[in-house]
Amino acid sequence: MQLSETPRTRLTRLADRGRTDVEDLYAVLDSGLVGHLGLVRDEVPVVLPMGYGRRGDTLYLHGSTGAGWARVLDGAAVCFTVTHVDGVVYARSVFDHSLNYRCAVVLGTTRRVDDAAEKRAALEAVTEQLSPGSWSYARLPTKRELAATTVHALHLTEASVKIRTGPPHDEPEDVVAGGRWAGVLPVRTVFDAARSAPDLESGPGVPPHVSDRRPR
Amino acid sequence: MQLSETPRTRLTRLADRGRTDVEDLYAVLDSGLVGHLGLVRDEVPVVLPMGYGRRGDTLYLHGSTGAGWARVLDGAAVCFTVTHVDGVVYARSVFDHSLNYRCAVVLGTTRRVDDAAEKRAALEAVTEQLSPGSWSYARLPTKRELAATTVHALHLTEASVKIRTGPPHDEPEDVVAGGRWAGVLPVRTVFDAARSAPDLESGPGVPPHVSDRRPR
Repeated sequence: MQLSETPRTRLTRLADRGRTDVEDLYAVLDSGLVGHLGLVRDEVPVVLPMGYGRRGDTLYLHGSTGAGWARVLDGAAVCFTVTHVDGVVYARSVFDHSLNYRCAVVLGTTRRVDDAAEKRAALEAVTEQLSPGSWSYARLPTKRELAATTVHALHLTEASVKIRTGPPHDEPEDVVAGGRWAGVLPVRTVFDAARSAPDLESGPGVPPHVSDRRPR
Repeated sequence: MQLSETPRTRLTRLADRGRTDVEDLYAVLDSGLVGHLGLVRDEVPVVLPMGYGRRGDTLYLHGSTGAGWARVLDGAAVCFTVTHVDGVVYARSVFDHSLNYRCAVVLGTTRRVDDAAEKRAALEAVTEQLSPGSWSYARLPTKRELAATTVHALHLTEASVKIRTGPPHDEPEDVVAGGRWAGVLPVRTVFDAARSAPDLESGPGVPPHVSDRRPR
């Protein structure tokens, strides 16, 4: 399936880095831990990091009913961006230094989720994105906890994906001149060994969905 | 030095996670590779990842003169957010799952940098943030390259810093109930071994500023 370009998602620069397959979009979204939500408050843009989850062609955001941003989110125009940094690109010239990255930018209008079944499914998606396996292992939300949580949906219709991979692209004269190293320093996210909570009773060890977890 | 709170940077929730020392702000900014710039274009928020640099109390952003966002950036109200994810917090309950993170949110109005000396110093800061050591190793920008680059400054007067560390905070009844593991899975960014560009002549090995680089 293809992402259809709109004037707002058209890449104005380095369009060869653009991807138009919806599977690329899903892949970038599904391997992230946090995205950055942009919204306009009092005519000023605000960018906040937050967890999220995806179900099919819908992205879900959740927050506390007490959060300032959640109160202005119903039907709001937003942008949600997920970025992975994959490498620092060292060129012969400062000018051609760059980053290898994968980035998804989603534009749209949020819809507050009030339907109980959809809200529960959305929270499962958000939980499984943050901590795969936790929905079936941890204690599920109570009615009170569900009431204290707001969920907003963002349809994945208008989005752009930009990916840079590979070595630096130096000017031919810099390559010919020689004498300077050029290449890529790969950047990667890793999980270290899990640390048990200090108030954990002796008994439950680290479950496999935590100890075996690898970055997606 | 203290960050003075404004109505826009006042934390509406979990204010105990807020930091007000400007050194906390600088520490979060200085250890990042990319931040997320929020701006308003055609009344809609747009969030884009980008490199940056800091000199004292000024943040610098650079872009190509051909980039769509750079053209709307002169004197624009923006938000620039840098987030580090430090751990996934597994609680006994789904509701108390969380993330350990450090986040800086800067609000302000951009100023285009036209002064040649400031522009050059800004580009050095941006380069050294992305790739410490490159400014003295790589070929420096030509006049043509400088002309093709726009630089914008953002003063670090209005900013908030939010940091979460430590174990999950479960409800007392969930701790007493027992039977479920709780703790933190630390998340870390690492650099792998550098890969030389395919068009590199035999000669220059990986320089120490690359091979010895460690995440800040």
